[in-house]
Amino acid sequence: MDRNVNRGGRPRVLVPIEWRDDVEAVRIIDQTLLPEELRYVDVVTVDQMCEAISKLRVRGAPAIGVAGALGVYLGMRGHEGDSAEAFARALEDVCQRVSSVRPTAVNLSWAVGRVQAAAKREMASGDAYAKAGARAAILDEALAIMDEDRRCCELIGLHGAELIPDGARVLTHCNAGALATAGIGTALAPIYVRHSQGARLKVWADETRPLLQGARLTAYELSQAGIDVTVICDNMAASLMAAGKVDLVIVGADRVAANGDVCNKIGTYGLACAAWVHQIPFYVACPTSTLDLSIRRGEDIPIEERGQEEVACGLGRRTVPEGVAIYNPAFDVTPARMVTAIITERGIARPPYGRGLARLMQSEDGSAGKTH
Amino acid sequence: MDRNVNRGGRPRVLVPIEWRDDVEAVRIIDQTLLPEELRYVDVVTVDQMCEAISKLRVRGAPAIGVAGALGVYLGMRGHEGDSAEAFARALEDVCQRVSSVRPTAVNLSWAVGRVQAAAKREMASGDAYAKAGARAAILDEALAIMDEDRRCCELIGLHGAELIPDGARVLTHCNAGALATAGIGTALAPIYVRHSQGARLKVWADETRPLLQGARLTAYELSQAGIDVTVICDNMAASLMAAGKVDLVIVGADRVAANGDVCNKIGTYGLACAAWVHQIPFYVACPTSTLDLSIRRGEDIPIEERGQEEVACGLGRRTVPEGVAIYNPAFDVTPARMVTAIITERGIARPPYGRGLARLMQSEDGSAGKTH
Repeated sequence: MDRNVNRGGRPRVLVPIEWRDDVEAVRIIDQTLLPEELRYVDVVTVDQMCEAISKLRVRGAPAIGVAGALGVYLGMRGHEGDSAEAFARALEDVCQRVSSVRPTAVNLSWAVGRVQAAAKREMASGDAYAKAGARAAILDEALAIMDEDRRCCELIGLHGAELIPDGARVLTHCNAGALATAGIGTALAPIYVRHSQGARLKVWADETRPLLQGARLTAYELSQAGIDVTVICDNMAASLMAAGKVDLVIVGADRVAANGDVCNKIGTYGLACAAWVHQIPFYVACPTSTLDLSIRRGEDIPIEERGQEEVACGLGRRTVPEGVAIYNPAFDVTPARMVTAIITERGIARPPYGRGLARLMQSEDGSAGKTH
Repeated sequence: MDRNVNRGGRPRVLVPIEWRDDVEAVRIIDQTLLPEELRYVDVVTVDQMCEAISKLRVRGAPAIGVAGALGVYLGMRGHEGDSAEAFARALEDVCQRVSSVRPTAVNLSWAVGRVQAAAKREMASGDAYAKAGARAAILDEALAIMDEDRRCCELIGLHGAELIPDGARVLTHCNAGALATAGIGTALAPIYVRHSQGARLKVWADETRPLLQGARLTAYELSQAGIDVTVICDNMAASLMAAGKVDLVIVGADRVAANGDVCNKIGTYGLACAAWVHQIPFYVACPTSTLDLSIRRGEDIPIEERGQEEVACGLGRRTVPEGVAIYNPAFDVTPARMVTAIITERGIARPPYGRGLARLMQSEDGSAGKTH
């Protein structure tokens, strides 16, 4: 495959997270305000970053990985003068805090682990400048993660584009787009690439209750990019499938277990059930950093449960009577048997996933890992 | 079965529609204001009634049948002095207008057809008082429909209760409860009856986008009745099923075709797909007035498409970007093969429905029609 095919028509997308070296700040788009307001916010402390991740101002598995890594850098500001032991303790504390903000997406703890390891390597030299060097190494590693994510998105786009025929009607859930990554997204990357190749596509965007990332974010970024998008309520997807109006489903992932079970935004599994009944291809797109081979099966993935108010009055008006119980899990698990293929930057894995995913993780680049 | 079993513990439920003879008005609960406000509104003209039905102030297939029938009576006010021809024309016009407000639920046109037929029978006598008599006959027939609906609900409750084991976790969609009928509801009737029999039940209420009748209405009326209810977003149902937390699904219907295909609130079919994958019983509860044997299959049922603003900003804040397309069908069709049983006031029909439903329609009472 010619990886340059997309360079010319590279889609212009929103950048939800950037490092601003001049002011030592992480500039994020406050996504809770979209689509009504596009506001950039400078995050300068680790507390602010934890709050931004917790409140979903910055969200999406790859993007919160980047945000977490940069958050660790912000958290280690002022610790260069500490003793080596105090520095190491502070690093441990900050990493612990950041990676526990959201438990489900593995990218967060993965990215935090990477910057922590980079700092430790630098500390191991033991010289007088080791702590300053360690902090610099955190930033370098965080920026490397961001850069890799950008390239991952493009490669996912190129691999995934091969699965999308011209004229396809594509259904997606939540937002696994530019706003969820440092690049052109995961689930949306193949759509951006096919669009830039001149394919005529129609996208159905599930609004994605309770926080409506599909309506607010996916519809926003696709329409900004000039891609035909129509918003539906989550509960309409099955009837669109029955009417023959959906050719394929493509979603992102927050964590993929070793057996190919996919943990993603709540509602993904319901979509998968409907796609299964209608025998519609169900694709998952994610960087290999989302694969967690240490987790054997989906049921072992911790599922974050979020506040009741997101369901009861997330949109201004109270819609659930006072005193009535609400259940609000943020994610669900789709069993591997319902997943047609998993699209990564290293290629496309197909069932049986146990072998395919392990091979992708071992491979160095896309061509070696391609299993189709 | 002892039909009196429920008399003692008859649940106290909200009454969404009543005829007030003293002021010649239809008193309705404005359901768009629930759960924040319980406001009763007197409807005195057919225009007001059409608006109330169109805006879902009064909703639910059985309730809009009653509302439509009473609306015809309001619409014929002042026509007693017309010539026989003018009266007949006005009747035709009013019936046409009322029954076209919402096209999907067959109960509306069925009830309007009944009051129209009653008026025509009276007119046929041709004497001087025929027009006044015809208008009185409309009211009598409308009140008879209301009374029959109340009894239907109780019988549906008694029949359906046999399908709900003690301790059952029951999932329902939208609101097919007291607020959707003149009685204790259709889908919720068996729940009320089992509760009054002392069964311990847990109800999962899908919030039901876009207008959240599950969160606003089902949760409201069940919690008022002291029944354990938990609200979820529609897209969470499948994962609850996967977790083994749902024993059965029970929903209402807006129209059932001769072959047993069920048209109901959008999202019902997605639930049915999930229940199908998990082999969970999927029950439909409705009066026989919802059966439309003139429609052969579900795909021939007209599906009402509603305004985009219900999805885009139905809850106060705008959640879909300006200019982005929205698709908002109000109903979907669940194929008969996914329906475990259809519970009516005349008994329970099971597959094959073609024969079972026709037999129910012919039967006079519950015991004769029971096919289980």
